[in-house]
Amino acid sequence: MLWTAHIRVSVKQNVLDPEGQAVQRALHMLHFDSVTSVRVGTYVCVQCTANDEAEAMQRVSQMCDTLLANPVTEQYAIQLERVEAHDA
Amino acid sequence: MLWTAHIRVSVKQNVLDPEGQAVQRALHMLHFDSVTSVRVGTYVCVQCTANDEAEAMQRVSQMCDTLLANPVTEQYAIQLERVEAHDA
Repeated sequence: MLWTAHIRVSVKQNVLDPEGQAVQRALHMLHFDSVTSVRVGTYVCVQCTANDEAEAMQRVSQMCDTLLANPVTEQYAIQLERVEAHDA
Repeated sequence: MLWTAHIRVSVKQNVLDPEGQAVQRALHMLHFDSVTSVRVGTYVCVQCTANDEAEAMQRVSQMCDTLLANPVTEQYAIQLERVEAHDA
């Protein structure tokens, strides 16, 4: 079974995010005055095979822990989506 | 009303993504052999005020079109979440 994992990696709340602050200032300059906070991170879209959702989630979490996120300063969230096979 | 918008900005399917290819190679070297594709993009988390979900979606789409995404090479997806007021 093929799975698509949408991974959002972002800096933790107590860590400074200068890129987010810059984007927030830019949005205010463009008159988006309703914006109260901006955080910028990395989006990673991984396709992988796994027998079921639990296995896919476990694999992707392991990828985040070992490579995709820095556990000291970053947090991550994973959304899984099953890819329908076209030639089943 | 306060809204949190989770924005995933990624390069379009037909545009080369060398960063994604590098991450895919790194994952294979770490023995994540089940990975078939990786795309890397930007994750932006914006908090803004709006009267309802439609208005929030319209505002955030406008931010993406004018600043957060490059319409030529990038695509974006928005997920909205209402922030519950603590002092309502």
